[in-house]
Amino acid sequence: MRADDMVMCPGGQAALSSALRALAAPGDTLLVESPTYLGALAAARAAGLRVVPVPADADGVLPDQLAAAFARTGARLFYCQPLYANPTGATLTAHRRAEVADAIRDAGAFLIEDDYARDLAIDGEAPPPLAADDPDGHVIYLRSLTKSAAPGLRVAAIGARGPAGARLRSGRLLDDFFVAGPLQQATLEFVTAPAWTRHRRALRTALRARREALLTALHRHLPGLAPPAIPRGGLHLWARLPDSTDDGALAAAAAAEGVIVFPGRPWYAAEPPAPHLRLTYAAAPPHLMDEAVRRLTRALGQETTRS
Amino acid sequence: MRADDMVMCPGGQAALSSALRALAAPGDTLLVESPTYLGALAAARAAGLRVVPVPADADGVLPDQLAAAFARTGARLFYCQPLYANPTGATLTAHRRAEVADAIRDAGAFLIEDDYARDLAIDGEAPPPLAADDPDGHVIYLRSLTKSAAPGLRVAAIGARGPAGARLRSGRLLDDFFVAGPLQQATLEFVTAPAWTRHRRALRTALRARREALLTALHRHLPGLAPPAIPRGGLHLWARLPDSTDDGALAAAAAAEGVIVFPGRPWYAAEPPAPHLRLTYAAAPPHLMDEAVRRLTRALGQETTRS
Repeated sequence: MRADDMVMCPGGQAALSSALRALAAPGDTLLVESPTYLGALAAARAAGLRVVPVPADADGVLPDQLAAAFARTGARLFYCQPLYANPTGATLTAHRRAEVADAIRDAGAFLIEDDYARDLAIDGEAPPPLAADDPDGHVIYLRSLTKSAAPGLRVAAIGARGPAGARLRSGRLLDDFFVAGPLQQATLEFVTAPAWTRHRRALRTALRARREALLTALHRHLPGLAPPAIPRGGLHLWARLPDSTDDGALAAAAAAEGVIVFPGRPWYAAEPPAPHLRLTYAAAPPHLMDEAVRRLTRALGQETTRS
Repeated sequence: MRADDMVMCPGGQAALSSALRALAAPGDTLLVESPTYLGALAAARAAGLRVVPVPADADGVLPDQLAAAFARTGARLFYCQPLYANPTGATLTAHRRAEVADAIRDAGAFLIEDDYARDLAIDGEAPPPLAADDPDGHVIYLRSLTKSAAPGLRVAAIGARGPAGARLRSGRLLDDFFVAGPLQQATLEFVTAPAWTRHRRALRTALRARREALLTALHRHLPGLAPPAIPRGGLHLWARLPDSTDDGALAAAAAAEGVIVFPGRPWYAAEPPAPHLRLTYAAAPPHLMDEAVRRLTRALGQETTRS
């Protein structure tokens, strides 16, 4: 991927919506991990795409299931967050990366690699993007700064080569011409300043402290909700709820207690296999986590009593 | 239209693309003035819409033709620039405004009013937007600052009420969430500063000088290209070319002479009735206009000789 292959966009959601529109037509099938980013599901539905979920686990999407889904559906497009996926935190493991790339190449398909969490490593170093090893231009690479820099810095980039890149570039002109110059300039200064490296180090330390505080609080108050595999980066934990819990009602009850969590259902393209909650450790300082989980426990108690 | 009815967008093109996607589905029919803004034609085609042109003249779209087109096509959406339309410079006259509003209401349709030129009046005051007199919420109002402020200030707003407004707001979330906060803040400071009023006065003076210089040069060197009706604002003159002129080849020949003009063909949804050029007086200072038209004369001479 060279600098010339990148197109600037006003944020990751814009990059995603533009990419889906440029690479698929209404009625086309999009494969996604299950669960996956709900903003991708919504953008795909808005673009008129048929969304087909592919099973995934703590090591990312299952390559044989992906190959089977390509064969079964005739899909030519797969959307994936291989690094610290939102909501599960899963990272595609080294041995699966090549198999996923093979499945995509064999299907003559494109991968939209949504690398939203590139700057959000906590444990060790993040593996390189799949786009870094893509000799034939099968990967459309989305890279956002919003999560690691500032919510108001609506700047992202799409990397795409060949005919896919050309389609994306003309589509972007119709979507909004270009990102405001001053905003691009501010972004460039931001990521080339020495402070950017320091900021990412500080971010890692802060994310680790918050993740650990949430895990500690879960083990203390709600051990059943602590995920068996700890995400090595990102912003969220994905908590399996007791069967028959109404995740939407629980999220509402938690909100009434002053704790914002996200119900699991909207992150599934089809019927969820079980109720889940997305718990965002990134949004609050460590010293609030114990109280937050106490309140979540109260909300869960109310919901369990009610059902 | 209240403040609550407005949605911020990253520029007028984004506002337009979002509005078309939110208000029409692939296969739907969109009525447009003929000719009209080519960015609207391109966005409509990208959204999978069938574009049907409605005749217009120097007083804007013809209301009876608009009503007939609604009846004939079953369209529910009309895109229009009632003020200093791009490319023709036409302004919808007072007596046609009510008839256009009637035609839209009678068809149960929506008007996308692209008010891109609100700050670009040269002669007298611009009439109010049609959205200012829209009791039933039939008007979706697009307002951009890019043309009057700075090309890099990619900020616009959509005004929309009722169910159309709700559809637009949820569509915008999928398109790019929201416009970068610092950019919105800068915009707000810009348009609320005393300098904004001064800037618009200076803009009017500068636009008038450039328009007059271009008209003077046309009357001197190419009187056949001077439009019979002078636009009372905006950025462009729309010049009818001699029959059988190839407008695309002429624009290329002019570019080779160092003069950038736009061929007329892409501004028509269907076959153009005659060849045209769009001449942008706004983009160069008055003292360059005479030389620009001399060079355009040379290019036209070459094209006429060749054909």
